[in-house]
Amino acid sequence: MKEKLKIYNTLSRTKELFEPINAPHVGMYVCGPTVYGEAHLGNARPAIVFDVVYRYLLHLGYKVRYVRNITDVGHLEQDSDDGEDKIAKKARLEKLEPMEIVQLYTDAYHEVMKKLNVKPPSIEPHASGHITEQISMVEEIIKNGFAYESNGSVYFDVEKYAKNSDYGKLSGRIVEDLLSGTRDLEGQSEKRKSADFALWKKASPEHIMRWVSPWSDGFPGWHLECSAMSSKYLGKQFDIHGGGMDLMFPHHESEIAQSQACNKCSPAKYWLHNNMITINGQKMAKSLGNFITMNQLFSGSSPMLHGAYSPMTVRFFILQAQYRGTLDFSNESLEAANKGYKKIINGLRISKKLIYIESEKPKDVKLNEELLKLIDQCFDGMNDDFNTAITIGHLFNLLKKINSIYTGSIETGVIEKEVFDKTISTYGTMVENILGLTEEKATDMEGFITALIELYKDAKANKQYDKVDMIRAQFKTQGIVLKDMKTGVDWGYEE
Amino acid sequence: MKEKLKIYNTLSRTKELFEPINAPHVGMYVCGPTVYGEAHLGNARPAIVFDVVYRYLLHLGYKVRYVRNITDVGHLEQDSDDGEDKIAKKARLEKLEPMEIVQLYTDAYHEVMKKLNVKPPSIEPHASGHITEQISMVEEIIKNGFAYESNGSVYFDVEKYAKNSDYGKLSGRIVEDLLSGTRDLEGQSEKRKSADFALWKKASPEHIMRWVSPWSDGFPGWHLECSAMSSKYLGKQFDIHGGGMDLMFPHHESEIAQSQACNKCSPAKYWLHNNMITINGQKMAKSLGNFITMNQLFSGSSPMLHGAYSPMTVRFFILQAQYRGTLDFSNESLEAANKGYKKIINGLRISKKLIYIESEKPKDVKLNEELLKLIDQCFDGMNDDFNTAITIGHLFNLLKKINSIYTGSIETGVIEKEVFDKTISTYGTMVENILGLTEEKATDMEGFITALIELYKDAKANKQYDKVDMIRAQFKTQGIVLKDMKTGVDWGYEE
Repeated sequence: MKEKLKIYNTLSRTKELFEPINAPHVGMYVCGPTVYGEAHLGNARPAIVFDVVYRYLLHLGYKVRYVRNITDVGHLEQDSDDGEDKIAKKARLEKLEPMEIVQLYTDAYHEVMKKLNVKPPSIEPHASGHITEQISMVEEIIKNGFAYESNGSVYFDVEKYAKNSDYGKLSGRIVEDLLSGTRDLEGQSEKRKSADFALWKKASPEHIMRWVSPWSDGFPGWHLECSAMSSKYLGKQFDIHGGGMDLMFPHHESEIAQSQACNKCSPAKYWLHNNMITINGQKMAKSLGNFITMNQLFSGSSPMLHGAYSPMTVRFFILQAQYRGTLDFSNESLEAANKGYKKIINGLRISKKLIYIESEKPKDVKLNEELLKLIDQCFDGMNDDFNTAITIGHLFNLLKKINSIYTGSIETGVIEKEVFDKTISTYGTMVENILGLTEEKATDMEGFITALIELYKDAKANKQYDKVDMIRAQFKTQGIVLKDMKTGVDWGYEE
Repeated sequence: MKEKLKIYNTLSRTKELFEPINAPHVGMYVCGPTVYGEAHLGNARPAIVFDVVYRYLLHLGYKVRYVRNITDVGHLEQDSDDGEDKIAKKARLEKLEPMEIVQLYTDAYHEVMKKLNVKPPSIEPHASGHITEQISMVEEIIKNGFAYESNGSVYFDVEKYAKNSDYGKLSGRIVEDLLSGTRDLEGQSEKRKSADFALWKKASPEHIMRWVSPWSDGFPGWHLECSAMSSKYLGKQFDIHGGGMDLMFPHHESEIAQSQACNKCSPAKYWLHNNMITINGQKMAKSLGNFITMNQLFSGSSPMLHGAYSPMTVRFFILQAQYRGTLDFSNESLEAANKGYKKIINGLRISKKLIYIESEKPKDVKLNEELLKLIDQCFDGMNDDFNTAITIGHLFNLLKKINSIYTGSIETGVIEKEVFDKTISTYGTMVENILGLTEEKATDMEGFITALIELYKDAKANKQYDKVDMIRAQFKTQGIVLKDMKTGVDWGYEE
């Protein structure tokens, strides 16, 4: 299966056969969240998309080191070189220490990831935890002539770099256009060109998040963080770099430039970008008032929502689309995803119960071929640039067969034992291991307990002591005792 | 209530009135785990003890900044200045990058903490994420004359420090004894005195975890980490420093020395130390083969265990003892704790159901006084150096009254409404908010469903359609539909 996986590489704008630099090892870096607010729908897509990439690579037998960072410093407003640090601003507003903000929203992000059944990465480095590595990298870039100090800050020299390298090759920007703003800046900025970007910023006196460096007490540039952390944990060259499409420029373009200028090689072989989620056709943005956090989704607490949508419904909704296409959120599409998820998970329950029974009948050759084809098609979908949309379509077709076996309209005996086993195992592997969908169990135990107590009282009144005993025994297996009191029947935990 | 809290301060060996440096703010630092293995019973005690300290301070209305670190570098074997780094060693054995080990066991630690209902701290800094801060601190200590460089490493000069400061005042060690090993070292060690401890260690060529510093590519000393992180997030002087008794020397003693040498003041006002957990009277140690991880406890998967013990049973077990006393683990004591926990939590369920009903009868003055006294005694326990053992004893007395109200032997009407409300609210606050005990619900939904389906089939066979409808309706509220099939009755999620 391995030799079949194709990945759309943003660098080449084509689907390429996946050939790791040092198989069976795969190094993968994905840009994680800037932790200054609650996780929202826009954070969920890359997390889930790259979780499935990670899961599928593991399924194929690769030894994957998956690094997803936490940005806790240096990400300034409007993703530019100016303005307040997003975390420092939130800290000021909430009257907390910046690292309290970081802890609060990192913990909250992890909670959401867990609910979405997103596997934790192998390493989750914090930008603020890699100051020395970033300083070393800046020193190297200066030494190589691609950065300059200006008033305690250090900027990357895009014009100089672009002379011999293709700045813009990832995002498709034309470097001449980027550099044309040059004259505007003369004397008005620390930067020589507006296209230059900060590697190190001198902190203003009131700026709390600051570290000692050879140039000033300051903080690292946002783009630099990812270059320093990816090369530290994955080496100068690694296999996959992922992130949202909105990060392609300037963030990822600058990462490539920094790594080239420092290490004289391009960092990642394959660049993957997931597309954005729109809301009723519009871009999601706080300023547009159509911003939905994950906890709002899970609880239904937003006027934009018709109700609560469970984590697995959201996960299924995101995986129903191929990751490179836009995905439009609407209540209708989430309701549809909820139905789809329920179908898939009922199928999982059923498939785990099915037992193969031999029969005298001849095998149904066509049916066996059909099943094998459906199994292949599920994997073909994944191999075609992780096209979960196609895979889910074929899974539904496979599910139809499983349902027919369950209801008895197909006898297991007409299926080859091997094909039957492969059908069941493929369905389970795809749903649970690769797509990462798990059963969300009903949790309102009190409802069940109350119903059983009603039936218990009824059985007692009618002297149906076998039923009384059965119900008591059922409670006992759960560590619960029924209490017959003057005031009625109640329950409690066995002490 | 605030003015009553007394804390046993290891520095003075007495219970002192708690007076924060800058009330209502309280800064608290607790030494967290070195993340090179699964969390074990020994990690659970400080986590739970200081969680209750944190919860109680919050209950008293303090604004607490609680910092609990993750040690991910510099903790060498046998807590000494020599030997392999604990994390690097584990990484070598498991063929992983050290930071993969850190991530794995940090995530696992968080899982266990969540199960134990331990609140996350306000800030959870990693030692490896504070290299620049540690280097700055070493520079300052050298500048102040209390450290010396030797072959790329930097050591704290205990003899010089001890001339004007009381090295040993926390742990009660005699500095002369500590310094007497001097001659042994002559010419054989980088250190001048065996009592000296590393602030910075030069890394051997094969050592992976290394950072650039003014002295060598190396790594920080274990004791230094906590000094750097506590002063960064809580200031040079803060209120509470906590940790296990085993950390008192050399770890905490050295923290005080470093902070004094760097900042010319003692770091924490109150030093709190929890005592150890023994196993059947013996010290717990890997070498003694009596080592129990938390996950073994939760699953019962150790030959030393008679069964599984739930997280809340373990929490209750730990809180049944005052934190400064040793606590002996045995299956019997855990089984007893399980019973105690169940009693407490049944009480919680009951207390939430009780409704106050006025009556014509006169108020029972003695009973009202008794209740008020019990309430006070619960708080008195907490105010006496967080004596949860005493508090839980009084909670059981309060529970007896609550049970009497529940079974009807006490009528609510004889209690003053205000006293009744205070009784209920105190019980709930103590159990849930301060002791942090939550209800562990029965989770085997399948068992309940199977029992209900049996009763459903029976009702159908007997044409008891009201019961049939009731059971169907109950399932429907849980999003579950019953399927009557030729092959029998089954259930599935409503699609």
